[in-house]
Amino acid sequence: MPTIRVSQAQINPTVGAFSMNTEKIIQFIKKARDKGADIITFPELCVCGYPPEDLLLKQSFLQDNLSAIQKIREHAKDIAVVVGYAHCHDGRVYNAAALLQNQKLVVNYHKVELPNYGVFDEKRYFGEGSESILFEMNQIRFGLTICEDIWIEGGMCEEFARLKQMDLVLNISASPFHADKLETRLRVAQRFARCADAFLCFNNLLGGQDELVFDGGCFVMTPQGGVISRAGRFNEELLITDIRIDHPKEPQPDVLKKPGASGIVLANRRYHYRNQIAPIMASEHGRFEEIYEALVLGTRDYVKKNGFTQVVLGLSGGIDSSLTLVIAADALGSENVVGITMPSEYTSQETLTDAERIADNLKIRLITVPIKNVYEAYLQSLHDTFGNEEISVAYENVQARIRGNLLMAFSNQFGWLVLTTGNKSELAVGYCTLYGDMAGGFAVIKDVPKTLVFELSEYVNDSRGQDIIPVSVIKRPPSAELRPDQKDEDVLPPYSLLDDILQAYVEEDRAPEEIIGAGFDRKIVNEVARMVDLNEYKRRQAPPGVKITPKAFGKDRRLPITNAYLKSR
Amino acid sequence: MPTIRVSQAQINPTVGAFSMNTEKIIQFIKKARDKGADIITFPELCVCGYPPEDLLLKQSFLQDNLSAIQKIREHAKDIAVVVGYAHCHDGRVYNAAALLQNQKLVVNYHKVELPNYGVFDEKRYFGEGSESILFEMNQIRFGLTICEDIWIEGGMCEEFARLKQMDLVLNISASPFHADKLETRLRVAQRFARCADAFLCFNNLLGGQDELVFDGGCFVMTPQGGVISRAGRFNEELLITDIRIDHPKEPQPDVLKKPGASGIVLANRRYHYRNQIAPIMASEHGRFEEIYEALVLGTRDYVKKNGFTQVVLGLSGGIDSSLTLVIAADALGSENVVGITMPSEYTSQETLTDAERIADNLKIRLITVPIKNVYEAYLQSLHDTFGNEEISVAYENVQARIRGNLLMAFSNQFGWLVLTTGNKSELAVGYCTLYGDMAGGFAVIKDVPKTLVFELSEYVNDSRGQDIIPVSVIKRPPSAELRPDQKDEDVLPPYSLLDDILQAYVEEDRAPEEIIGAGFDRKIVNEVARMVDLNEYKRRQAPPGVKITPKAFGKDRRLPITNAYLKSR
Repeated sequence: MPTIRVSQAQINPTVGAFSMNTEKIIQFIKKARDKGADIITFPELCVCGYPPEDLLLKQSFLQDNLSAIQKIREHAKDIAVVVGYAHCHDGRVYNAAALLQNQKLVVNYHKVELPNYGVFDEKRYFGEGSESILFEMNQIRFGLTICEDIWIEGGMCEEFARLKQMDLVLNISASPFHADKLETRLRVAQRFARCADAFLCFNNLLGGQDELVFDGGCFVMTPQGGVISRAGRFNEELLITDIRIDHPKEPQPDVLKKPGASGIVLANRRYHYRNQIAPIMASEHGRFEEIYEALVLGTRDYVKKNGFTQVVLGLSGGIDSSLTLVIAADALGSENVVGITMPSEYTSQETLTDAERIADNLKIRLITVPIKNVYEAYLQSLHDTFGNEEISVAYENVQARIRGNLLMAFSNQFGWLVLTTGNKSELAVGYCTLYGDMAGGFAVIKDVPKTLVFELSEYVNDSRGQDIIPVSVIKRPPSAELRPDQKDEDVLPPYSLLDDILQAYVEEDRAPEEIIGAGFDRKIVNEVARMVDLNEYKRRQAPPGVKITPKAFGKDRRLPITNAYLKSR
Repeated sequence: MPTIRVSQAQINPTVGAFSMNTEKIIQFIKKARDKGADIITFPELCVCGYPPEDLLLKQSFLQDNLSAIQKIREHAKDIAVVVGYAHCHDGRVYNAAALLQNQKLVVNYHKVELPNYGVFDEKRYFGEGSESILFEMNQIRFGLTICEDIWIEGGMCEEFARLKQMDLVLNISASPFHADKLETRLRVAQRFARCADAFLCFNNLLGGQDELVFDGGCFVMTPQGGVISRAGRFNEELLITDIRIDHPKEPQPDVLKKPGASGIVLANRRYHYRNQIAPIMASEHGRFEEIYEALVLGTRDYVKKNGFTQVVLGLSGGIDSSLTLVIAADALGSENVVGITMPSEYTSQETLTDAERIADNLKIRLITVPIKNVYEAYLQSLHDTFGNEEISVAYENVQARIRGNLLMAFSNQFGWLVLTTGNKSELAVGYCTLYGDMAGGFAVIKDVPKTLVFELSEYVNDSRGQDIIPVSVIKRPPSAELRPDQKDEDVLPPYSLLDDILQAYVEEDRAPEEIIGAGFDRKIVNEVARMVDLNEYKRRQAPPGVKITPKAFGKDRRLPITNAYLKSR
C-alpha cells in the first residue's frame, strides 16, 4: 500500500522579513529531509508573512517575494516542498501555494476562496483562483488547498468529492487564534475530510502579527475525521507523520476542469523508511491556558518583531495591570519589564502595597513617581480659566494623562515600549482615558473582558500553585482611584452583567431591544449600548492588542465614528 | 421628440440617522414634484448614509433601512424616484437602487461592480448584482447604475453598448473627494456615455463622514460627452434638467440577460411643461478653492454630526495651527472656535504675537496658559530616575504632551472638541508627538502636505484680499519650538524636497531605489522611507482627518505596524 512521510512546518515568520523568513524555510526543509520526509508544507504566505496588507501594493515587495521563492526552490532537493507566497500572474496577484521539487517550481495553486470578512481583506489584494491542482507522488494523489478553501461548505470540498481522485489534501493556512477556535477548526476539517474522502494535512502559521496571533496546531486527519498526529501550539515545530493510504483512488486522466492543472506526477522519493515514525500527539490546552499562551505569544512577538527588548507599564495595584505584568514577564523575562507606580492622593495604601508585592513576586524593577506636584501645577494653570467650576471628570482625566505622559517620558528616554493595561469591558464602554491609561504601544489585554481578567488571574495563581497575583488584588472591588472612594460600579453595572450585555451587543451585533427581550434591564442595556457607540472615537485611537475573542475591537469591527444610528433613538 | 425633466438631489445625509435622512429625502421629492420633475434621483445608500461600514452587519440596522424605504415609497406620487439603500434579498445584502412610482417599489437594481480597494470595502458587505435594469418612461428608455458601475472599463458600459437600448443612464454615487477628482470623474463619465451611447445623469452624495468628504457636483452629460447642466459642490442642491432625446433607441423586447429585468414601463407623467427650465451651470472651483472647501465641509460635518458645537485648538503662531484656525472659523463660525496658546520658555515673542494677531483677525477667543510650572514639576518628578542624563527628545515630548493634556482638560470641562493641527508631511515622517500635538478628535489638515499648507494659506489671504494669516507666519522657517533655536529643517529635508519624496514613496508606492533612480539623494530617500515605515504606530493612533489626496493615511493605506520590510534593508 502506498505510504508517504509528510512533514508540516509550523513556523513563525515576520511580515516583510524576506531573508529571515527564507532562511527559516530553508532550515526547516533541511531538517525535514534529514528526517526522511517525502514532502514538507509551509503556512500560507509564509514567504512574506501574513497578513502583509498594503505591502502587497508595492511592486518591490512582490519582486522580493519572487526572489525569495527562487532561492527556496534551489533547496527543494530530495524532497517536495509546498510553500505559501504571493504569485504574480497576468497582472494580478494570487495568494498561492508553490509546489517545488528537483529545484523546479512545478506548479502554482491559486487560492479559490478569498475571505473578506472579520479581520480579512483578501479581495482587496488577490485575484480568485479558478483551477484545482492534482498531483501524484509515491502513487498517492494529492490535492492542494489554502486556508479558507476548506472552510466553505459546497466549495472545494464538493469539487474534490465530485472528482473522487484525491487521496490526501494538503492545506496551508494562516488561521488566527481566538478562544475555542481549535474546536471550530477541527469540525470544519472533519466536514472537509469526510466530504472529500481524503486525508487532510492542516498546516497553520505561528506567531503574533499586530493584533493577530496564529496559534499553529498542525494536524493530520484521516478521511473519517480522526486526528492521527498533532503538533503543539504557540511554538515553532516540525510535525512529521507517516501516512499509509489503504484504499488509493483509481486514477482517471484529465478529470479536472482545466486539463493543464492535472496529471502532474512528481518524481517518487528513492528512500524506503527504515523506521516508521511514531505519531506525535501534543497535549491539549485548557480554556484559560490557551488564552494565556496567546496573550504571551502576541505580546512577545509584537515587542520583539518591532525591535524592542524592554517594556514598561503603569502598575496601579489593580487586577488589570497585575495580570498584564505577569503576561509581560512571561513573554519577555522579568529583567525586561519595568513597573512604574504613580500614586496620587487618591491612591490607597493597600493598592500601593499590592503593586509592590506583585513586582516583588515577579522580581520586576519597580519605580515610584508620585504625581502630586505635577497635578497641583496643572490645577493651578487651569484655575484661571476654569475658576471655581465644579471639580469634574476633567480633573480625573488630568491625573490619568499625567501618568500617560510619565510613562511615555520613560519610553522616550530609555527605549522601553509602553504596555497599556486596559481590558475589553472598559474599552467597550469608554471607561478609560484617551492619552492617559490608553497611552502606549501595545494593549495586552485589550480583548479580555473584565470577568475573564479575573478568571485568568485565578488561572495564573492556580497553575503556579502560588499567589503571584495577591489575593487582595483579586478580591478588591475595581476602582480607578481618581477621586475619593471611587468604585467602577458607581457608574458601570457589575462587570458580570456588563460583560453579558457586551457579549450580546458587541460580539453578536444584537439590537438593544433583542437583548432586553432576553431578560436584561432596559435602562442598563440602553445605557451600555449608548456608551459603546459614543466611544468609538476612543477605540479608534487605541493601540493594537491581542485578539482572543471572535470579534475584537480593531480590524474585526469597523464602525464609523460619525454614527447617528443608536445615538438618535 | 421624447423629453423628460430629471432632477438630481445632492443631499447630505448622516450615517445611521434614518428618520432625519428619510425626512430630507421626502422634502426633496416634494420640491422636485413642485418643479414639475418627472423623476428624481438620490445618491447611493443615502437612506442609511455612506459608508455605513459594520452597521450593515446589524440586523436591526437593515430592518430600519427597509422601514425607511417603505416610508419614502408612500411619497413617490406623481414622480418617479430612484433612491439608494441596502436591499436584503435571499440572505444577502445588496447595494441597491430602488425605483419607486405610484407609491410602489417597482424594481430593485443591485450594484454590479463592488469597489474593494482604496477606502472601499464593499465586498465585505454586499453581494454582487448580476442583472441590468431597463425601464421606460415618457417613451424614454432608462438604464440604472450605481457609482463604480460606470468606472469599470468593459463592464456595464459594454453591456449597455451591446444592448443598444438605453437612451439615458442614471447613476447614483457616493464618490469621495480628492483634489482633481472631478476631472477624473468627467473623463470616466465621458467614456461611459460615449460607449453606452446614452445620456448620463450623475448624482453624487454630499457631506463629510469621518475621513471622507463627498463633494456633490451632480451633472447631466450628453451621449457625446458634453455637460449640459451641473450642480455646485460642497452644498446641498437640487439640480433640475430638461432632457430631449433626439434619436430614441428602437425598443426590442427581452434584450436583457434575465427577462424579468426588462420591459418595465412606468406610468408616463401627465404634465406638459409650461416652461423649459434653463440649464444650470454652476461655476467651477480652482485647485486651492476646492481643497479648502473640502476641508471646511469635512470639519463642519465631523463636528456637527458628532453632536459638538464648539471646538478648541492649540494656537502656536505657526502656519499649521493658523490655517486650521481659519478653516475651523469658516466651518463653525468664529464664535464657536477657541484658541489656546500655551507658551514655554522656548516660545518666541514673534510667534506669540502672531497667535494673538490671527485670533484677533478672526475674532476668536484666545486663552493663554503658560506651561512653565507644569513642565518644571515634570522635570523634578523625572529627575530622580533620569538623573543627569542628557536632556533628550523625551523632554521635548513632555512639553507637547502637557499641551495635549491641557487641551483635553478644556475639552472635558467645556465640551469643546479638540482639533489637531498637524500636516501630512509631519505625520508621514513621525515629526509629531503622540498624545501631544496629535491629541484631539479631528485632524483637520492631516492629509495636507506642508507645501500645500503654505499654498492654502496664501490662497486664504489672496481670496479675501487681506492677510488673515500674518505674512510673518508664512515667511518664518517652521519650528516646533521645543528647544532653543530649533528648526524643522535641522532634522528634516526642506519641505519641498520632503514632499516630493513622500509623493513618490507614500502616494505612488514607489520603492526607494526607484525614487533614487529618478534623481533624488540616496541618503535622504532612505532616511525618509525609514521614518515613514517606523512611524506607522503613531499614525494608527492618530485621529481621523479630511482626505484630500488620492492616498490619505487612514482607510486608504493599510500597512502593518509590525513590518520588517524596509527596516531590515
